[in-house]
Amino acid sequence: MKADPRRRQRSPYPFWIEVPLRYADMDTMGHVNNVAHVAFLQEARVCFLRRLFEVEKTDFGATRLFIARLEIDYLREARYPGLMDVGVGVLRTGRTSYTLGLASFMGDECISAADAVMVHGDSSGPAPLTEKVRARLAEFALRF
Amino acid sequence: MKADPRRRQRSPYPFWIEVPLRYADMDTMGHVNNVAHVAFLQEARVCFLRRLFEVEKTDFGATRLFIARLEIDYLREARYPGLMDVGVGVLRTGRTSYTLGLASFMGDECISAADAVMVHGDSSGPAPLTEKVRARLAEFALRF
Amino acid sequence: MKADPRRRQRSPYPFWIEVPLRYADMDTMGHVNNVAHVAFLQEARVCFLRRLFEVEKTDFGATRLFIARLEIDYLREARYPGLMDVGVGVLRTGRTSYTLGLASFMGDECISAADAVMVHGDSSGPAPLTEKVRARLAEFALRF
Amino acid sequence: MKADPRRRQRSPYPFWIEVPLRYADMDTMGHVNNVAHVAFLQEARVCFLRRLFEVEKTDFGATRLFIARLEIDYLREARYPGLMDVGVGVLRTGRTSYTLGLASFMGDECISAADAVMVHGDSSGPAPLTEKVRARLAEFALRF
Repeated sequence: MKADPRRRQRSPYPFWIEVPLRYADMDTMGHVNNVAHVAFLQEARVCFLRRLFEVEKTDFGATRLFIARLEIDYLREARYPGLMDVGVGVLRTGRTSYTLGLASFMGDECISAADAVMVHGDSSGPAPLTEKVRARLAEFALRF
Repeated sequence: MKADPRRRQRSPYPFWIEVPLRYADMDTMGHVNNVAHVAFLQEARVCFLRRLFEVEKTDFGATRLFIARLEIDYLREARYPGLMDVGVGVLRTGRTSYTLGLASFMGDECISAADAVMVHGDSSGPAPLTEKVRARLAEFALRF
Repeated sequence: MKADPRRRQRSPYPFWIEVPLRYADMDTMGHVNNVAHVAFLQEARVCFLRRLFEVEKTDFGATRLFIARLEIDYLREARYPGLMDVGVGVLRTGRTSYTLGLASFMGDECISAADAVMVHGDSSGPAPLTEKVRARLAEFALRF
Repeated sequence: MKADPRRRQRSPYPFWIEVPLRYADMDTMGHVNNVAHVAFLQEARVCFLRRLFEVEKTDFGATRLFIARLEIDYLREARYPGLMDVGVGVLRTGRTSYTLGLASFMGDECISAADAVMVHGDSSGPAPLTEKVRARLAEFALRF
C-alpha cells in the first residue's frame, strides 16, 4: 500500500507532528541516518496513540501497544538542519491489530513512506479492539 | 520471504555479528526498543558490506551503498542485559540492487526477521552490479 | 562557574534553542536519560557555532571545532512530553580555546547546567582564535 | 582528580567492561561522537552498579541511583570499528553519595577520563549509604 503514489503526498494524512532534526540524527555521510528515520516514525506513532487514546503523557494504563511489523521505503536523502514533518493515518483495522500509514516530508519532498502493524492488547496478550477504539481509528483513516 | 519459518532459524544465515545490548537500547517499558533493533540490523549490514567489499574500516571509495527499503517483523521482546546475534545473507540479486535477509536472535529465540533492499551505485546514481560483486553476493546467499 | 546560582536562571544566556523531547530520549524509568541531556547540549552547541561562524548548514570549512571537556550538573528530572529550552553563552575566552556556559530549562525549572571547553583549530591542530572570532565570542558573553 | 595522569592508565581501575563500537556511534566527521562516549560511560556505570548491588538484570528494588554530575575530558578521537574498554573505580565516598572515576581506552590509548557523582537514595530522596554498600564501594576503590 505504501507504494501507492498518493501515499507520498501530504493530503491523505490526518495527523501530523513536526520533528526538528538534530545534529545527532546524521551519519558519517552527512545524511539523516536510516535509523533516525525510524525514530521519527516512532515519535509520530507515540504522539498519534496519545491522541487516539486521549493520554496526556505516556501512561496507557492496562492497554499495551506494540509494533509487530514495520515496512519503510527510503525515498530521498535528508540533510540537517531542518524540520521533518511526519504524517500518520489508519490504513486497515483488524480484530486485534491495525495498520498505520506514515510518511515523512521536508517541504514538499516525501522522504520516506511506511506501514506499521500495531497489535492491541493487555498484560495477557493480544485483545480485540473495543468499539470505542474502532470508532477513534475510523476518525483517523487515511483520506484517499 | 521473511515470513518463511526457516528465516527464523539460525541455519540459513552465512554471516554473523554479535551485538552486546546496551542499557541505552531499552525503552521506558524495559524492553529493547524497536528503534534499537533497527540499529542492530544496520550494524550487521555495515559489517557484512565491509566483508563483502573487503573494506577494513568504512571507506567504500566511490562505491555508494544505500538502503532503499527495510521490512522488519518484531517477533519477541528482548531484555537487557544480553547478547544479540544478528545473521545476514543474500536473498535476491538484481541489476543495480540486492536484497539482504537478516534475523536477530538471543539464544535460540528469534527476536526479529528483516529484509533490506540495498541499492548499489556511485556518485552519479544507481550503477549495475559488477561481476565481481555478483560473485561475492552469491557466496553469501541464504542457505535454504 | 556552573555552581553559580545565576547560571540556573534564564537571564544570563544570550543564545537559545528549543528542543522538543522525543519518546526515544526517555530511559527505563520514564525520565529523560542523562545521555539525551548531553545530546541536547550538543545540539545547542552546534546551533550556536553555526550562528557564531555564520555557517548555514554544518560546513565549517577548514575550521575544526572540538570539545575537550564537558561538565554537567543534573539538577532535576525531566519527563516526556515537553519542550526543552537550552541556553548558551560564552564564559571564558583563551588563546586557542573558549568555554561555553549552557543550561537547559523546562518552563521555569533549570534541568541541567554545563560548561563545555571548546578547542579551536584546523587540520594541523589547535590554532589561535582570530580577532574576528574573539569579537563574535564577546558578543555572546554570558550576561551577569 | 581526573587530571591526575595515573587516571589515564589502565592500572587503577578495578572494574572493566568492553563495548564494541557501533556504526551508529560515529558522527558526520567519522569520529566516535562525544554523546556516544557518554553512553559508554553510562553502560560502564550500569554494569558496575549491577555488580556492586549484586543485581542480575536491572531491578535495583527500592534503591534509587542517579547521577548528579558528570565531568568528562575528551582526550583522543576514536574511530569505528573497534573495541572500547571502559574502566570504573570508586574515587570518593560521602554520606549519601559517591564519586566514580572512569576512563575509556582503545588499546593503550586513553580516549576519555571522567568523574561521575552518584546519589544514593530511595523514593523519598537521598539516603545515607549503608555499611554494606560502603564496604562494597571500598572493595572497588581506584588503586593508586
